[in-house]
Amino acid sequence: MERVDYLSDERKRAQFDVDAMKYVWAGSRHAFEVSDRISKLVASDPAFRKDDRTMLPRKELFKNTIRKATYSWKRIIELRLSEEEAAKLRFYVDEPAFTDLHWGMFIPAIKGQGTDEQHQKWLPFAYKMQIIGCYAQTELGHGSNVQGLETTATFNPKTDEFILHSPTLTSSKWWPGGLGKVSTHAVVYARLITDGKDHGVHGFIVQLRNLEDHSPLPGITLGDIGTKFGNGAYNTMDNGVLRFDHVRIPRDQMLMRVSQVTREGKYKQSDVPRQLVYGTMVYVRQTIVADASCALSRAVCIATRYSAVRRQFGSQNGGPETQVIDYKTQQSRLFPLLASAYAFRFVGEWLKWLYTDVTQKLQANDFSTLPEVHACTAGLKSLTTSVTADGIEECRKLCGGHGYLCSSGLPELFAVYVPACTYEGDNIVLLLQVARFLMKTASQLGTGKQPVGTIAYMGRIEHLMQCYSDVQNGTFFFLKIQLT
Amino acid sequence: MERVDYLSDERKRAQFDVDAMKYVWAGSRHAFEVSDRISKLVASDPAFRKDDRTMLPRKELFKNTIRKATYSWKRIIELRLSEEEAAKLRFYVDEPAFTDLHWGMFIPAIKGQGTDEQHQKWLPFAYKMQIIGCYAQTELGHGSNVQGLETTATFNPKTDEFILHSPTLTSSKWWPGGLGKVSTHAVVYARLITDGKDHGVHGFIVQLRNLEDHSPLPGITLGDIGTKFGNGAYNTMDNGVLRFDHVRIPRDQMLMRVSQVTREGKYKQSDVPRQLVYGTMVYVRQTIVADASCALSRAVCIATRYSAVRRQFGSQNGGPETQVIDYKTQQSRLFPLLASAYAFRFVGEWLKWLYTDVTQKLQANDFSTLPEVHACTAGLKSLTTSVTADGIEECRKLCGGHGYLCSSGLPELFAVYVPACTYEGDNIVLLLQVARFLMKTASQLGTGKQPVGTIAYMGRIEHLMQCYSDVQNGTFFFLKIQLT
Repeated sequence: MERVDYLSDERKRAQFDVDAMKYVWAGSRHAFEVSDRISKLVASDPAFRKDDRTMLPRKELFKNTIRKATYSWKRIIELRLSEEEAAKLRFYVDEPAFTDLHWGMFIPAIKGQGTDEQHQKWLPFAYKMQIIGCYAQTELGHGSNVQGLETTATFNPKTDEFILHSPTLTSSKWWPGGLGKVSTHAVVYARLITDGKDHGVHGFIVQLRNLEDHSPLPGITLGDIGTKFGNGAYNTMDNGVLRFDHVRIPRDQMLMRVSQVTREGKYKQSDVPRQLVYGTMVYVRQTIVADASCALSRAVCIATRYSAVRRQFGSQNGGPETQVIDYKTQQSRLFPLLASAYAFRFVGEWLKWLYTDVTQKLQANDFSTLPEVHACTAGLKSLTTSVTADGIEECRKLCGGHGYLCSSGLPELFAVYVPACTYEGDNIVLLLQVARFLMKTASQLGTGKQPVGTIAYMGRIEHLMQCYSDVQNGTFFFLKIQLT
Repeated sequence: MERVDYLSDERKRAQFDVDAMKYVWAGSRHAFEVSDRISKLVASDPAFRKDDRTMLPRKELFKNTIRKATYSWKRIIELRLSEEEAAKLRFYVDEPAFTDLHWGMFIPAIKGQGTDEQHQKWLPFAYKMQIIGCYAQTELGHGSNVQGLETTATFNPKTDEFILHSPTLTSSKWWPGGLGKVSTHAVVYARLITDGKDHGVHGFIVQLRNLEDHSPLPGITLGDIGTKFGNGAYNTMDNGVLRFDHVRIPRDQMLMRVSQVTREGKYKQSDVPRQLVYGTMVYVRQTIVADASCALSRAVCIATRYSAVRRQFGSQNGGPETQVIDYKTQQSRLFPLLASAYAFRFVGEWLKWLYTDVTQKLQANDFSTLPEVHACTAGLKSLTTSVTADGIEECRKLCGGHGYLCSSGLPELFAVYVPACTYEGDNIVLLLQVARFLMKTASQLGTGKQPVGTIAYMGRIEHLMQCYSDVQNGTFFFLKIQLT
């Protein structure tokens, strides 16, 4: 049978320096080289095979993930990989796993909200993975409204302990990744109650399972919450349920950097500004924007290659049919997504700068840019994840029937990506926060308070109101383009 | 723990006659009663359980589907169900299965394209399921462009046979449901070649598997094309691949109602108008529109009930939080989908009427309304399936994190539904056909040819051009509503 390499034809026609673009995409030549080296390391090791992932039954899939995570850890140590290289390895292993929560949420929560003594006590175990932690915040009944969490942590001054309890069905912890099967510990968010008074939601380090036989500790009920959307995808993760029946933990397991409970049961704030926690939120959302670019670029890459290879209609005199990438209807759907993948890559870099900038300001007790930074990260998290989720599905449809087969890679990419529209702030709720911020800013114009950063333009409102465009409508605009 | 039935509260407040609405939805009181009775029959029979479907490994899932299909057939016979009741039973069993293609494509293709002799020979076996058939049209390389199919059926006058052959990799039949594992026969579409001349694509009845041991017949390669999008969903179907290596079938297995090949190898058309095949296309697309309403109404039902039960934010003085259905942002996303589900239900009924009407006209050799009917069904298929696919995903997001669990029902509903945007005419290709029809109609205005049916209004173009609305923009419109 005839074999024609249409892709190679297309690649030869690139009108830009492909290697230079690789470095731009990676961030630097160094970043590209690390990424390239680690990607080859993962791709060439059969222990990291992914092609069977959408076909494995849930139990096999999950065992496989544990095996890969353990093996990754072994290779990271054997090869003495740097932190940058280890992160890249986990990136290319490319399976949601309990390690994401351990490294991405449990450790950062202790670092951000724990005292120096707590760091010294817990972090060495966590860094060596002698304990494995997760982040138990969301409950069956509360996600967006964190202040409405129902789990209680009641201080008992007699024993110098907190008593953790799940008073209702809806107070069950529900969703935390790594909780269902693997974690030995969790940072648990619960309402702090001292002397009958509710001080709102605070974090506590809680041991969940026996370190000898991995069985749940007394008073703790644990389980996996079941199958999630898609083949493979987040089914590699043991999202779990957790209930407490009057479980006692020592007082020093409350994360006490920002507020404390004394031996006498007195609640007090430290002089560490509460705003510092927003730094973590900016950090997490910045990584979500970076991930959006990555997920969208994968989908666009698959759909673009398919569009170059697939031919349909338009054969003349028995010659080959038209490559579908040459149809305007295909281009008008695909190319804006290609452009968006690049745009999200670059706005992700800008968010990294914004995080560094706000962190420095927060450490200098300068909170002036915080509302604007919060609005930017909320808006960009919402925008990039929504466009990416819809974009992956559009890429799937752009591959016609073939996009519906798991072998195209697109069904799993969609299923593993879509929760990003919900977690770390529901996209609609986030947009409402941005709207509220913009309305507030607009209402303060004229009070002498100058808008800063991305909304500085609003301070020039009087000038802007004088400006008019001579564009009447889209048709006019397109006509002008065609005429020039 | 406290249990409050929020749903019952909401139901009590309905401002319409719920029973009357049930009959409207079902189409009639009789249709409702059949539907209700059969739904209870299926729901109460443990053999039809569905709750494990998203958890079963592919092989178990598929065996389960065969078991259910066989058991359904047994019950249909035992209970002497009417055709209407049997169809409802398959509807409530609610799993894509080889039987869909057998009853929905294989038998109709023979009925529509076969001669009376072919009906008498093949249909009795098919009706008793002594043979099981599928519909082998789509190939690896050709979907939308049916005229580009590559499989050949070359007439050999010496033996009075056709030789079916797959000359290229892309000519492999790819996707037909029921083909991979179950079907004994197929209607195969192939280029008819007689005496070196290519007469285009025609249908042939081909036996694929031995009726004794179910092994593929000589020269035939068969297989399943692998895992598809989602848990459960279309993985209950054995979508397959089929290749022919010079497979011989008797001449009388060409479907000869519209065109024939004589014993001498002469190709000729019968006096049956070719346009009759469009009747089948209208019928199939009408059922797709009806299915859209059904799928969307299920998703909306789940999201509406969730929105009534879920509460988040807005607690006053420690009272319950606000039901999320009371938030305008939830309403503005959910209610238009609820309205669309009803609208699609009613436009589906209209399409049924259109099908009856065009069938009568075709039988009277009146082809005048065919272009308009074709445009209507193409446009409505595209519109309703796109809105439904996006709508199910929106309903999933409206359930927050909980919509991501298979136990919500929404992930499988999405995965099983989305191929409707691609099969039976890719939605974008169909919209282009509608656009072409509209442009053609517009270009013929003034030539004396009066547009009919849904585009009759275009005939009044001169009058319409005189009409102006005093609405300036959306704001004005909303202001007027607020003032009145």
